[in-house]
Amino acid sequence: MKIAIDAMGGDYAPRVVVEGAVTAAREFGCQIALVGVKECLKQELRRIRRYPDSLEIIHAPEVIGMDEPAAISVRKKRNSSIIRCVELLKSGKADAFFSAGNTGAVVCAATLGLGMLSGIERSGIAIITPTLMEDPTIVIDVGANIGAKPSHLLQYAMMTDVYYQHIFKVERPSVGLLNIGEEEAKGTDFIKEVHQMLSESPLNFIGNIEGEDIFKGKAQIVVCDGFVGNVALKVSEGLAEALGVFLKREIMHSLTARIGLFFMYRALKRFKKSLDYSEYGGAPLLGVNGVVIIGHGRSSVKAVKNAIKVAIKEVEYNVNQKMVESVEQIVHTQK
Amino acid sequence: MKIAIDAMGGDYAPRVVVEGAVTAAREFGCQIALVGVKECLKQELRRIRRYPDSLEIIHAPEVIGMDEPAAISVRKKRNSSIIRCVELLKSGKADAFFSAGNTGAVVCAATLGLGMLSGIERSGIAIITPTLMEDPTIVIDVGANIGAKPSHLLQYAMMTDVYYQHIFKVERPSVGLLNIGEEEAKGTDFIKEVHQMLSESPLNFIGNIEGEDIFKGKAQIVVCDGFVGNVALKVSEGLAEALGVFLKREIMHSLTARIGLFFMYRALKRFKKSLDYSEYGGAPLLGVNGVVIIGHGRSSVKAVKNAIKVAIKEVEYNVNQKMVESVEQIVHTQK
Repeated sequence: MKIAIDAMGGDYAPRVVVEGAVTAAREFGCQIALVGVKECLKQELRRIRRYPDSLEIIHAPEVIGMDEPAAISVRKKRNSSIIRCVELLKSGKADAFFSAGNTGAVVCAATLGLGMLSGIERSGIAIITPTLMEDPTIVIDVGANIGAKPSHLLQYAMMTDVYYQHIFKVERPSVGLLNIGEEEAKGTDFIKEVHQMLSESPLNFIGNIEGEDIFKGKAQIVVCDGFVGNVALKVSEGLAEALGVFLKREIMHSLTARIGLFFMYRALKRFKKSLDYSEYGGAPLLGVNGVVIIGHGRSSVKAVKNAIKVAIKEVEYNVNQKMVESVEQIVHTQK
Repeated sequence: MKIAIDAMGGDYAPRVVVEGAVTAAREFGCQIALVGVKECLKQELRRIRRYPDSLEIIHAPEVIGMDEPAAISVRKKRNSSIIRCVELLKSGKADAFFSAGNTGAVVCAATLGLGMLSGIERSGIAIITPTLMEDPTIVIDVGANIGAKPSHLLQYAMMTDVYYQHIFKVERPSVGLLNIGEEEAKGTDFIKEVHQMLSESPLNFIGNIEGEDIFKGKAQIVVCDGFVGNVALKVSEGLAEALGVFLKREIMHSLTARIGLFFMYRALKRFKKSLDYSEYGGAPLLGVNGVVIIGHGRSSVKAVKNAIKVAIKEVEYNVNQKMVESVEQIVHTQK
């Protein structure tokens, strides 16, 4: 199995991405195509010295910056690492593609280059988040598709249902619709239409859930439109960060608390780890005709490595093919 | 100054609400009209024994439950505490109204009963949140108005600008638009239209801000539509709660950490306090023709007391009148 890596994407690229990819190649025994500016990548590999033979460099002279407008850069920078990765995937020379780069550009390039799975209109980014329950929750979409239609959300639910079944081995994962209240009559007309569609579907739809229910793990799959999902994701990240700073301030303010910190250090470290997004590392872009995993811009070595693991699993279980079959079957039954 | 209190609203009503109101009457010397089922309220006051003479009970035999559909209950339960409070405000027998009850019903009753301020089309709930900066941030709207138009968001910004100036003594508070990216071209057509309107306004508009920027205090005022704002608020509440549970689990798991907790206890308590919503206690419903403060369903005694303080300040500074003047002036200048 070969994974194409956008080695130029991410705040700490190429160094951290290359290191993560090398670690993954060693640990999982997969082949890696490092795509990016050849000289930069060679330089990074020289630093690492011993790396597996299963690593190859594919030259892509252009780089799409983190803040460049997606559609324009994808159209203009045909020699960028993102476009090259998509081409590798399309031609069958790679089985999956990972990028921690410009999310908009990745979504745009993947959509244009790979097309959509049969029966799917739009792709959605599915983020995997830890909850108070044992199982994680997948929230889809957190920003691939701004301006979704109700049918897109239904398709997100159908795809993620298959994904969850195969990756987390849960037979009928519960599906919740992110809304501002639990009652059926709540929300915008858009939300009410989605509610109706999900109710009529064969999915294990448990109704509306509220923002506070996500981390309680009330539903294993939470669907929402990309704008709302993106705001929710970023608010969560910002709050977690702010709480960390607040806590540090209070502790540093007091000698007694600093003594306490000494005793509590390991527990706090475990706490931090349990919330660490890098445990999953990557968010699958579901709906495009290929395995595409999106990483956080600030991806660490571990995050890159684990994102590659997410990619490998998705390929191994042939999730995309199973999604197409499931969607086909649902549509067929409803006719 | 007299504050009408919906004594039956909130998860711990009437007990906690009555206690909070009594504390406020004592501390701030304001008059309080406790509105609710007479017998219940008398019973509660008996428990407290000595309470200020400035407290009166106004009988309202009906109660609107926390989960009742707003519009229907407001129409049908004309003898409910919420409706009575609005009537007191409208007739000038009270200067402000506080409720920790059914938010939808409060918004609906206040809108129908009091009407809107001149120049304002819709009301918005303005929540005050602590940030990493010294100044708090006000996020508006967190759920009064589902299905907002761009002009509503402009009006939220104009109103909150005046509110912030007078309550927090900041001359030109910064205004940010909650979006999924900082660049002007980001977001839905709706958001782009609001961006345009805010850019052309005389407000101190600093552009788009992302979810993670709220707690960083990047903008003193953050505007968004009620659906997105409500999800953001509830996601934050849920995450903060979940983090607390996660942390507790890790600490309780280890003896060393529990020893650390002993030393850190006071710092953790201060940490919790610094985030405590009950420090502000209430969120003003801006836009209706009267001072209406909405409390969290789980309002504590302290939260009720502080919400009454928020109400008193808004009345004292005559914020509503100043909003009308400011909006008038802006509209006049733009013509």
